[in-house]
Amino acid sequence: MKSRAAIAWEAGKPLEIAEIDVEGPKEGEVLVRIVATGVCHTDAFTLSGKDPEGLFPSILGHEGGGVVEEVGPGVTSLSPGDHVIPLYTAECGKCKFCLSGKTNLCSSVRATQGKGVMPDGTSRFSLNGKKLHHYMGTSTFSEYTVVPEVSLAKISKEAPLDKVCLLGCGITTGIGAVRNTAKVEPGATVAVFGMGAIGLSVVQGAHLAKASRIIAIDINPDKFEFARQLGATDCINPNDYDRPFQEVLVDMTDGGVDYSFECIGSVNVMRTALECCHKGWGESIIIGVAGAGEEISTRPFQLVTGRVWKGSAFGGVKGRTELPGYVDDYMNGNINIDDFVTHTMKHEEINEAFRLLHDGEAIRTVLTY
Amino acid sequence: MKSRAAIAWEAGKPLEIAEIDVEGPKEGEVLVRIVATGVCHTDAFTLSGKDPEGLFPSILGHEGGGVVEEVGPGVTSLSPGDHVIPLYTAECGKCKFCLSGKTNLCSSVRATQGKGVMPDGTSRFSLNGKKLHHYMGTSTFSEYTVVPEVSLAKISKEAPLDKVCLLGCGITTGIGAVRNTAKVEPGATVAVFGMGAIGLSVVQGAHLAKASRIIAIDINPDKFEFARQLGATDCINPNDYDRPFQEVLVDMTDGGVDYSFECIGSVNVMRTALECCHKGWGESIIIGVAGAGEEISTRPFQLVTGRVWKGSAFGGVKGRTELPGYVDDYMNGNINIDDFVTHTMKHEEINEAFRLLHDGEAIRTVLTY
Repeated sequence: MKSRAAIAWEAGKPLEIAEIDVEGPKEGEVLVRIVATGVCHTDAFTLSGKDPEGLFPSILGHEGGGVVEEVGPGVTSLSPGDHVIPLYTAECGKCKFCLSGKTNLCSSVRATQGKGVMPDGTSRFSLNGKKLHHYMGTSTFSEYTVVPEVSLAKISKEAPLDKVCLLGCGITTGIGAVRNTAKVEPGATVAVFGMGAIGLSVVQGAHLAKASRIIAIDINPDKFEFARQLGATDCINPNDYDRPFQEVLVDMTDGGVDYSFECIGSVNVMRTALECCHKGWGESIIIGVAGAGEEISTRPFQLVTGRVWKGSAFGGVKGRTELPGYVDDYMNGNINIDDFVTHTMKHEEINEAFRLLHDGEAIRTVLTY
Repeated sequence: MKSRAAIAWEAGKPLEIAEIDVEGPKEGEVLVRIVATGVCHTDAFTLSGKDPEGLFPSILGHEGGGVVEEVGPGVTSLSPGDHVIPLYTAECGKCKFCLSGKTNLCSSVRATQGKGVMPDGTSRFSLNGKKLHHYMGTSTFSEYTVVPEVSLAKISKEAPLDKVCLLGCGITTGIGAVRNTAKVEPGATVAVFGMGAIGLSVVQGAHLAKASRIIAIDINPDKFEFARQLGATDCINPNDYDRPFQEVLVDMTDGGVDYSFECIGSVNVMRTALECCHKGWGESIIIGVAGAGEEISTRPFQLVTGRVWKGSAFGGVKGRTELPGYVDDYMNGNINIDDFVTHTMKHEEINEAFRLLHDGEAIRTVLTY
C-alpha cells in the first residue's frame, strides 16, 4: 500500500515528504495507521548524524498514537480498530529481561530493531524499490507503519491520540523515572536538570509523588513558568552563579538533594547531578543521552559515601503493562499532557517542527496526518 | 596514665614502639584497654603517606577489641568491664544521618575524627608533652585508647577479642556490603574483585546470602584456595586473558553478573566491575579506597541500560546496633573469622605485621598486648 511519509535520506538534511510503499504485516506484526506523532530530541539527534547507530535512509518518529489497521498471522492481542501507542521498548513477557521483574529492557526484538529492520530481518518500507530503514521499531513519521505486536500498547479508545501520543516517549520517560527508577517518596527533595519535555515531566512526576521541594534547573529562564505550573518550587539558572553548581545546590538543600535527574545528555551535567546529591543516600538518575564516546566521571569517594548513580530508559516503564494506566491517568486529569503540546501542525510541516525543537520554541509539536 | 603504643611519626617510616601518655576520658568519652587489634590496608595506606587526610604523628589502628576501663561524665550505655569493639563509623542515633534510616554514615563525631582529635577538639595522646593525633576515632595501636561512647559497640563477653576484633573493619565491611548495600538475594551471580580480607569477606557474605555463583578474582592465585573454602564457585585470574576482562565475565555469566564488588581501590578495576554487570539490573558496589584525586569513568549508556553504581563504607553497618549480632553469628559458627587470622604476634612486632600485609603473606595479622 501507499503511505504519506517523511523520509530521512541522510544526516543533517531536511526530511522529504513523499508517498512510500508499505508492505503488509507478516507473522507477529501489526499495521498501524498513525493519527498523530510528536517530534522528540532523539529524532533530531539521529537526524543530525551524531547518533552512532543512526541509519539512512529511514523513517524516523517514535512518539505516536494510532489505530490498528490489520494484523499479521499469529497476532492474538490486537485487532483492527484497537487504539495503540507504539513502543520503542517492547514488552514480550517471555524473555530473560521481562521475566526478571527488575527491568523494562525487553530483549525480544532489540537486535533487529537496532538494525532498522523488522524481526525477520527485512524492512516493510520502500520507495521506488529502494529499501528504507525502520527506526526504533516505530517509524511514526509514516502514516502507515508496521510494528511488532510486542511493541504496541493497547489503550483506551476514548483517549485523544493527538495528546496521548506523547506518552510514547517524553512524558512517560520523565514520570516513570520518578516512579520506577528513583521511587521518589513523599517529602523528598528533587533537582531536575534540563527543562525540555522530559525534565518537565520529571517535575510533574515529582509533584505527583509529593516531593516537598522540586528544583528546576535550566539556562533558559523562559522554561521556568511552565516548570512552576507543573510543581517546581525553585527555578534556578546555573549561569547566575560563579562557583561549582553542585555546591550551590548542596548549600540550598542543607547537604544535597535526595534525588537528581539529568535530562539533557551532557556528561558534565551528569557529574554535577551526582555530586549535588546528599551524602549517605542521594540518588542520581541519568535520562539524557550523551554523545557518542563521551564518558562520565567522578571521584569514587562520591559513591563510597553513599550516593548512587543510576540510569533510566523509557522511565523503567513496561509499555504494554503500564502505559494504558498512564493514558487513564491523563483521562482522569491526573497527568497533564495538554500543556506540553505547544504547537500542532500537519505532517507535511515536519521540518518546521524540527526547527521549533532546535530553537527551543516548542516543548512539543504534535503532527497529525 | 602510661600506655604501650606504636607511633606513626611520619609517612613511610616504621612505627616506633614507645610508652605514651594517655589522658583519662572526658565528657561522653570512654577509656578502653585494647586486648587485640588487626592490621588493615587502610592503616598501611595512611602510613604510606598516600592518604591525603593522613596526619602525623599519630596512633593508627582501627580494627580492635577491648575492655572498658573507665567512663567519662555523661556516659550511660557502657560500664567498666564491658567488652567493646571501637567503631570508625559512629552511631549516635540522633543525627540527620542516623535518623534517616538510609545510611550508617553517622555525622556526630565525623568532623573532629577527621582532624585526629576527640570531639572537644583536643587529643588524649602525647609523648613528652608532644601531642599525638588520634586516628579514625579508634587508635587501637595504643593499649589504652580513648573513644567517644557513640563509637563503641558493646559485645558479648564470651567472644574472644583476638578474633572478633576483625569485625571492627574488614570482615564486617565485606559481609555488610553484601547484606546491606547490595542486598544479594538467593540464586544471584556475584563477582568479587580482590581477595584481600574484605574481598574474601564478600565471598563469605555472598555464600551466606545463598548466591548461586560466586566468582573470586585476583591476580594472585594463592588466594583462591581460601576463597573456595569460603564459598567461591569460580576463581579466575585476569592475567590469564588477553581481552577486556569485563567481556570475559559477561561471556562466563550469560550477560553479566547480578552484583559485583570492587575490593581493591583501583579505578580501572572499578570500571571493569561496573561493566561486567548484567544489563537491566546489575549493581556494582565500590568498597576499595582509590588514591587521592583518582576518578572513575564509564559511558553513561552503561547506567541508562540499567546498571547501578554504588559504594559502601563499613558495609553499611550501623555499628552499635548491628555489630553485636555479627559477634553472635561468629559465636554460633555462622561467620568464619578464625581462618582469616593467618598470623598472631605481640604488639611490639607490629612492623613485621605491616610487612606481611604488604607482601600478601597474611590475610590478617592479629596483634595482642
